[in-house]
Amino acid sequence: MDKSDFSHHYIQRFNAELEKVRTDTLAMGGLVEQQLADAVQSLVRRDPELARQVIANDVKVNGMDVKVDELCTSILARRQPTASDLRLILTVLRTTTDLERIGDEAKRVARMAVSTSSSTDARSVFLEIEHLGEQVREMLHDALNALARFDVEAALAVADQDSRVDREYENILRQCITYMMEDPRTIPFVLDIIWAARSLERIGDRCCNICEYLIYFVKGRDVRHTDLREIESELKQERSSGIN
Amino acid sequence: MDKSDFSHHYIQRFNAELEKVRTDTLAMGGLVEQQLADAVQSLVRRDPELARQVIANDVKVNGMDVKVDELCTSILARRQPTASDLRLILTVLRTTTDLERIGDEAKRVARMAVSTSSSTDARSVFLEIEHLGEQVREMLHDALNALARFDVEAALAVADQDSRVDREYENILRQCITYMMEDPRTIPFVLDIIWAARSLERIGDRCCNICEYLIYFVKGRDVRHTDLREIESELKQERSSGIN
Repeated sequence: MDKSDFSHHYIQRFNAELEKVRTDTLAMGGLVEQQLADAVQSLVRRDPELARQVIANDVKVNGMDVKVDELCTSILARRQPTASDLRLILTVLRTTTDLERIGDEAKRVARMAVSTSSSTDARSVFLEIEHLGEQVREMLHDALNALARFDVEAALAVADQDSRVDREYENILRQCITYMMEDPRTIPFVLDIIWAARSLERIGDRCCNICEYLIYFVKGRDVRHTDLREIESELKQERSSGIN
Repeated sequence: MDKSDFSHHYIQRFNAELEKVRTDTLAMGGLVEQQLADAVQSLVRRDPELARQVIANDVKVNGMDVKVDELCTSILARRQPTASDLRLILTVLRTTTDLERIGDEAKRVARMAVSTSSSTDARSVFLEIEHLGEQVREMLHDALNALARFDVEAALAVADQDSRVDREYENILRQCITYMMEDPRTIPFVLDIIWAARSLERIGDRCCNICEYLIYFVKGRDVRHTDLREIESELKQERSSGIN
């Protein structure tokens, strides 16, 4: 094997490793999305069995997190990537941390499902929790799709959804406060609903984090503490002046 | 300058950069610790001015986070560290993310301080919030000290404190539920107290994260999803058999 063959082979293997990191991250995202969907269903349908399954499955999420992290660390140590390869690894490391924490929030929702499952209280707030859960799941799904396609515009659209999620959460919170004031005996039960709603709202925030990491990867700029509307208007300017 | 001079110079500059990363992280930790202390004081003493100061100072925390992250990324790209140098950079990247989020929680506590400041309700639960705040601040302080000295045993001791913090939080939560049931008009006010307590409890969790990263750095092992008591008993075994 001459030198150019070697370097070709080396680059091929490196690319295969980067591709594996990316597919493993998306697979982890898929599992977390399922956990989130199951957690919300277990709460809304009062299904403690499904909730216990979500709680038990969290070790799988953790295992995938450790696996991807180890692969990233090993690539950093052996391949010493620079420029966009380095940014990809850092993006993945940050993304899996947030995915793992989204898994933790799903587990919290499932715990609230176990805790509220024996109650016969069938308030309309469960419908709104289901709706909030669907919105947040859509955010996660779209964030993972944006990551799969390295699509900054899709990432910005996810961030746009977050204000809707926040409003929905505030709405559920107000409704819960009214329930508690009307009938103080329901306070422990309604608090569990509030915790679940708050976990869902936090998942929305974490989806935004993932989108910010993706923008960092594509644009090479840390936008974590930037107003994303600035990035949006920049993108529009770039499009209108033909830069890509 | 001959070759060995060059490599000596290179290593010196590299070490200076690693040292800067470490001191910047500790400086960021110091600021976050102050933010936490001020946030708790603003809540307990009903001081909305101090609370607004905490909220305004959060941009400083974010700025330090971005600065340390940029330095780490630049070191990864230019110096391509391996082994313990690489682990140090990864430990710092993870630590600053948690410090930044601890800053966010302190800001949330400060917001609750603004929101509750006009109330004349002087319940004993504020004393317990103050105590919880002190415990969590101590955890953060000890975690940063452990990081400054690369001290695994000190890190394990921080993790031990977390169960006390969790118990204290549960205790405050129970007390708040009783308040709300006794006088439903206080529900919005007491919910604010609950949010603040929950933020403090989450800060305790994040201090544990920082300690886990430190153990990863020193032991070269990812312990994020491991029971820390296992590491503790390993350490004891190592000590008794004289391994270090």
